[in-house]
Amino acid sequence: MLINCVAYQDGKKLADIPIEAISDYIGRPDCFVWAALRDATPEELKQMQEEFSLHELAVEDAMRGHQRPKIEEYGDSLFAVVQTVELSGEQLAIGEVDVFVGANYVLSVRSNASQGFLGVRARAEREPHLLSKGSAFVLYALMDAVVDRYFPVVDMLETELETIEERIFIHGSQRANIERLYELKRKVLLLRHAVAPLMDAVGKLYGGRVPAICSHTQEYFRDVHDHLYRINGSLDAMRDTISTAIQVNLSMVAIEESEVNKRLAAWAAIFAVFTAFAGIWGMNFKFMPELDWKFGYPAAVGVMVGVCGYLYYLFKKSGWL
Amino acid sequence: MLINCVAYQDGKKLADIPIEAISDYIGRPDCFVWAALRDATPEELKQMQEEFSLHELAVEDAMRGHQRPKIEEYGDSLFAVVQTVELSGEQLAIGEVDVFVGANYVLSVRSNASQGFLGVRARAEREPHLLSKGSAFVLYALMDAVVDRYFPVVDMLETELETIEERIFIHGSQRANIERLYELKRKVLLLRHAVAPLMDAVGKLYGGRVPAICSHTQEYFRDVHDHLYRINGSLDAMRDTISTAIQVNLSMVAIEESEVNKRLAAWAAIFAVFTAFAGIWGMNFKFMPELDWKFGYPAAVGVMVGVCGYLYYLFKKSGWL
Amino acid sequence: MLINCVAYQDGKKLADIPIEAISDYIGRPDCFVWAALRDATPEELKQMQEEFSLHELAVEDAMRGHQRPKIEEYGDSLFAVVQTVELSGEQLAIGEVDVFVGANYVLSVRSNASQGFLGVRARAEREPHLLSKGSAFVLYALMDAVVDRYFPVVDMLETELETIEERIFIHGSQRANIERLYELKRKVLLLRHAVAPLMDAVGKLYGGRVPAICSHTQEYFRDVHDHLYRINGSLDAMRDTISTAIQVNLSMVAIEESEVNKRLAAWAAIFAVFTAFAGIWGMNFKFMPELDWKFGYPAAVGVMVGVCGYLYYLFKKSGWL
Amino acid sequence: MLINCVAYQDGKKLADIPIEAISDYIGRPDCFVWAALRDATPEELKQMQEEFSLHELAVEDAMRGHQRPKIEEYGDSLFAVVQTVELSGEQLAIGEVDVFVGANYVLSVRSNASQGFLGVRARAEREPHLLSKGSAFVLYALMDAVVDRYFPVVDMLETELETIEERIFIHGSQRANIERLYELKRKVLLLRHAVAPLMDAVGKLYGGRVPAICSHTQEYFRDVHDHLYRINGSLDAMRDTISTAIQVNLSMVAIEESEVNKRLAAWAAIFAVFTAFAGIWGMNFKFMPELDWKFGYPAAVGVMVGVCGYLYYLFKKSGWL
Amino acid sequence: MLINCVAYQDGKKLADIPIEAISDYIGRPDCFVWAALRDATPEELKQMQEEFSLHELAVEDAMRGHQRPKIEEYGDSLFAVVQTVELSGEQLAIGEVDVFVGANYVLSVRSNASQGFLGVRARAEREPHLLSKGSAFVLYALMDAVVDRYFPVVDMLETELETIEERIFIHGSQRANIERLYELKRKVLLLRHAVAPLMDAVGKLYGGRVPAICSHTQEYFRDVHDHLYRINGSLDAMRDTISTAIQVNLSMVAIEESEVNKRLAAWAAIFAVFTAFAGIWGMNFKFMPELDWKFGYPAAVGVMVGVCGYLYYLFKKSGWL
Repeated sequence: MLINCVAYQDGKKLADIPIEAISDYIGRPDCFVWAALRDATPEELKQMQEEFSLHELAVEDAMRGHQRPKIEEYGDSLFAVVQTVELSGEQLAIGEVDVFVGANYVLSVRSNASQGFLGVRARAEREPHLLSKGSAFVLYALMDAVVDRYFPVVDMLETELETIEERIFIHGSQRANIERLYELKRKVLLLRHAVAPLMDAVGKLYGGRVPAICSHTQEYFRDVHDHLYRINGSLDAMRDTISTAIQVNLSMVAIEESEVNKRLAAWAAIFAVFTAFAGIWGMNFKFMPELDWKFGYPAAVGVMVGVCGYLYYLFKKSGWL
Repeated sequence: MLINCVAYQDGKKLADIPIEAISDYIGRPDCFVWAALRDATPEELKQMQEEFSLHELAVEDAMRGHQRPKIEEYGDSLFAVVQTVELSGEQLAIGEVDVFVGANYVLSVRSNASQGFLGVRARAEREPHLLSKGSAFVLYALMDAVVDRYFPVVDMLETELETIEERIFIHGSQRANIERLYELKRKVLLLRHAVAPLMDAVGKLYGGRVPAICSHTQEYFRDVHDHLYRINGSLDAMRDTISTAIQVNLSMVAIEESEVNKRLAAWAAIFAVFTAFAGIWGMNFKFMPELDWKFGYPAAVGVMVGVCGYLYYLFKKSGWL
Repeated sequence: MLINCVAYQDGKKLADIPIEAISDYIGRPDCFVWAALRDATPEELKQMQEEFSLHELAVEDAMRGHQRPKIEEYGDSLFAVVQTVELSGEQLAIGEVDVFVGANYVLSVRSNASQGFLGVRARAEREPHLLSKGSAFVLYALMDAVVDRYFPVVDMLETELETIEERIFIHGSQRANIERLYELKRKVLLLRHAVAPLMDAVGKLYGGRVPAICSHTQEYFRDVHDHLYRINGSLDAMRDTISTAIQVNLSMVAIEESEVNKRLAAWAAIFAVFTAFAGIWGMNFKFMPELDWKFGYPAAVGVMVGVCGYLYYLFKKSGWL
Repeated sequence: MLINCVAYQDGKKLADIPIEAISDYIGRPDCFVWAALRDATPEELKQMQEEFSLHELAVEDAMRGHQRPKIEEYGDSLFAVVQTVELSGEQLAIGEVDVFVGANYVLSVRSNASQGFLGVRARAEREPHLLSKGSAFVLYALMDAVVDRYFPVVDMLETELETIEERIFIHGSQRANIERLYELKRKVLLLRHAVAPLMDAVGKLYGGRVPAICSHTQEYFRDVHDHLYRINGSLDAMRDTISTAIQVNLSMVAIEESEVNKRLAAWAAIFAVFTAFAGIWGMNFKFMPELDWKFGYPAAVGVMVGVCGYLYYLFKKSGWL
Repeated sequence: MLINCVAYQDGKKLADIPIEAISDYIGRPDCFVWAALRDATPEELKQMQEEFSLHELAVEDAMRGHQRPKIEEYGDSLFAVVQTVELSGEQLAIGEVDVFVGANYVLSVRSNASQGFLGVRARAEREPHLLSKGSAFVLYALMDAVVDRYFPVVDMLETELETIEERIFIHGSQRANIERLYELKRKVLLLRHAVAPLMDAVGKLYGGRVPAICSHTQEYFRDVHDHLYRINGSLDAMRDTISTAIQVNLSMVAIEESEVNKRLAAWAAIFAVFTAFAGIWGMNFKFMPELDWKFGYPAAVGVMVGVCGYLYYLFKKSGWL
């Protein structure tokens, strides 16, 4: 579905143009066309391929979808794939934005992403001195928007990790913790799959040998790279912390197990002593003088309770109970 | 066993040719020969070596088989080894395709692979503008076919992992999970052995210093590389997840163990109390007034049941039962 | 908040100057301005941006804060972000110092850092032959001051680790150890986040291709790099040791558990034997001659105590008790 | 001990020569000398040093022995150290072959290796067209022979690993498995120490900047490198699998422990119930009507057996027994 | 404390010279001065700094001490820091040797190291042809001496590891093993801290771009590098093995725990059965015919012993006892 298709000159909007007119405007010097598709059908992509003269392999990738983030050069043009990551309740929803960039056109194709990029276009049109840098600046603006939307996801994941960390040494929360840690790890990996390859790809858009169309916007791509680097660092730290937390959680299970076992052992000992005494005076020997005493029974119970009470005291003191 | 041997000119099929005629056709400019063997005998390979003037060490490798995936240059020609990975029931079957590529010939030798490459040849013949790029394009087409067949295997492995993940926190499934995780890890390693070295090798067919015969098909090899990179990324993520899952599984064993122990401790305590009371009234003291009461017996049983019931309530409340 | 703003010539202080005068002094050859802000408001930064002609993206980073440590080139000028790490009771407090460096100016912006850099300026003014090296030397002096403050933090963390190590094989300290190890790991990661990226960044200020303004102070930056490298090495060693300590701690839990279990088993066996004997002589058979013996009862108790005593001796000898 | 010392010209054997004649033959163009020592004494090495003008440091290394595999350039000559790995019963025996290679000589010194290299010499003499490539080809042939002997060792280790894997989920084999896994890991590390440094060293004999005497045999060294790379890959995979197997083994111990505990708990419960009932009817209350019933006893036993039987059924159903 | 200070010419000793004369001798061509300090005071270092014109930052490092091993270039001179590692009873004692090397001087400063380098000087003076290579050869000789002293430490650590390995599968040694493994790991890390950075530093003294004064002694530094590489390899292997041993030790704890539990379960079952039988015949039912039998009592005891004996046999057979 075509969202919009606009021609710009010197950073200013010329006109909304129909698809058929694209190839005309592309021909004009100092003019560039910025088109945006959403959940494009193969037919729409075919049409765009003809208008913009896109490379066959790039269009194939866009049709198939589910690409890893990457930036590929096809002659003078670029084909960029970035993944959007959005919070959808407790889950992360992964979408994809494919951007075809030539010297005088930008075509973005968004799939499975609920948030659009109208805001990006609006802000760009309000800053003609930036937009006049051409199509590479539009690529930057789109990437920057996608990457900025990673930050709240990272924050959410870090908050979740902190919540788990607060509960990690609390009795009886180990099962819940391990489930949440596993789920969190899954999400961190998901986000990392969007971030890490993109970071590598963007790193090639500044510094060393840079594609010609990006040569005047290097500092902007370095800025995007820096953001991705920071996010990646946070994700690596989280992975490390989650691994440690899983190990620590296992230790806590073992420690609690050990405490339960000690308590079990203590109570078992107390009752075993009690039962042993009762067993003695339950024997049927003829000559057991204490059985005939007037206060033998209460004395016996007293001894039993006394001994067990003393054991209880000992175990309490040694921390087993 | 020779499958077929065809000469092409300008991307179009000239003729099926007999083995003896190969060296003639190879001599003609603008003409190339594409031969395919299956489970070749040493004699067949010797014959091919003579017709195509293949390098001794490369032929030796093809005879021995069980090579790691690689692409080696011998002068102007290439020797590529790729592994096929096919689903055979629950198991993965590893086969091998050795491809000898020269400026005007391609010889593929397939071993232990149930699926052939007739479809690759058919499609190539339907697209003469591509086939006219020569032998390097055929190498690409063969590799692409092999790599495309990795995807369903990856999907199967990912499905298996998700199935295990759904059962990882379910009571009593730990033994089955650990067996399945181990088996899955084995398969991931197997596939990784086919993918990772090939990825490194294909990475040298585009970008920097490229073998002469591949210089016009770089974008195609980059496409194959990209697919391999994506698969490799998935496999790495699976390895990471499997490691975590094994750890988590161990934690779950310990947690369940701990819960069983608590329940055991609780019931042991209840019966120990019950038995202790019975022991008291089983003692043979002469003066135990309650033994002579009319309703002593039901009262005693009542006390025993009451105390134990109260214990049961306490344990239930604290989550031990 | 502006702390101070001073113009220097040939390493000697010229005058405290008002903000408005900055752009004048910057224009003079051989003269440079060193200004320092603390917890700057966006307005102050805007004003500075105009006076020093700072790059928009760098100023944006300084406004947003919470940057990772880095050193970026903007044309001929540098933008450096370093993190301060201070002990705040048991916790680590992370602050940030952003430094803008041009050929003839230095602007430092400090946030969330309790300790200032007045001492750095004072020492620099006492050594005019060093200060005359210009703005890059000031950058070095500021970095050196920040990095020097990492050392006591590292010492504190190492002391904490040693304290835990001394307790790692002591009975019953496993729960406390694991909590402290986890907390320590967290702090090590925090410090490492300040150190590692800065080390990489400083590594580019000497040796190979160096920004022009740093070319005469390379040996100083190598010195800072060397300090960071040393700290980083210590942190890596601590991470490694903490990982091992966590594993060892788990082993100690299991070993103590095992010892408790053995003791439990031994006592259970002793009392089971005792109770079994009591059970025998508590049976109601008519013909049990020993029940009628005069000294049957003490003999029986003697046998019971004797057997259990012997068991106790056996267990003691085998180390179970 | 000198094994043999032969002079070759154009790939053909000239004559067996005495040690003293070596320096004469080395002087002739197109002629090279191939000498082989075994468990050489320092005196023999000194003599060889003089005849071949070997570098002092290389000879020192050969005398001391126990070098890591390496290939060092001394001016125009090479000094190669390779380790032989042989099966000696269940154990691996590590030997060493030091090879001094100059433009017109090869000196191999074998230590602690039971298998010799007479076969290598014999085969080389049967292929004069290869031997005529000179001393570098002899180095290749020796290395190839050593590396070929690694393969059966790798096979043996892989077979051992498979045997363990088959037993990993079998009840009660955990102790044996862990011992065998540890032993296997030790052997894998041992072999890896022979393979990995050699792989790195051989990697420098083809491709980029290559020592002059190896320039015409690059494809052969690439072949050796390829073999080493394959072995190294297998060893890495085995290390990874062993690590996982050790973890899985621990999980299996915990799982079996847990199953034993459940069974213990179940039987404990059954007997506790049995004993509790017996305790009730063993009490000495006067008014316990059921004690006077004619069939009270069999009824009581019936109830006890019935309840316990029902418990048994319940536990059986829930999988605890 | 000055140990000695000698001037050399053409590899031969000229004279012991006083500190004040150093700057004179340094001025002469073909002459170099080799001075050695021990536990130098700041004043001594200041004096040396003036005589040798040492760089301020290098002298500062030497004063502060506790540097990581490194080799830094200051103009044409080198500043090397190496750590000595000595056995001091069971512990490792870390010392430091700082070496300042210029075209015609060497100054070594030793701290906390019990062994000196008089032997190095004596041997160097006996080999004038080597000493005539100048100051870089002295640096080599000192490094070589330090590195040679690492070998006995490595041997000691490996012996300790082997001792532990022999005990790893022995019953009841887990606690001692884990303590020794932890201690060993600590020592390995300590030694590695001395070795690894030095290896990297020495690696820059041969091969590629080499400091001018080392250009004629590259093969010697390669020899030192090779030794360090070998030690580093051993340490890495030990770290790997220790990690595995810690894991295996934990498995052994779990396995022994499991065996103890089985034995506990078996004995508990036997006594539970015994007690259950005793409980039956301890019941007070009126009509229990077997109680009146003449041989009821021995028969009952016989039955109880028989059943328990049979259970014992069953458990024995299944390996639980």
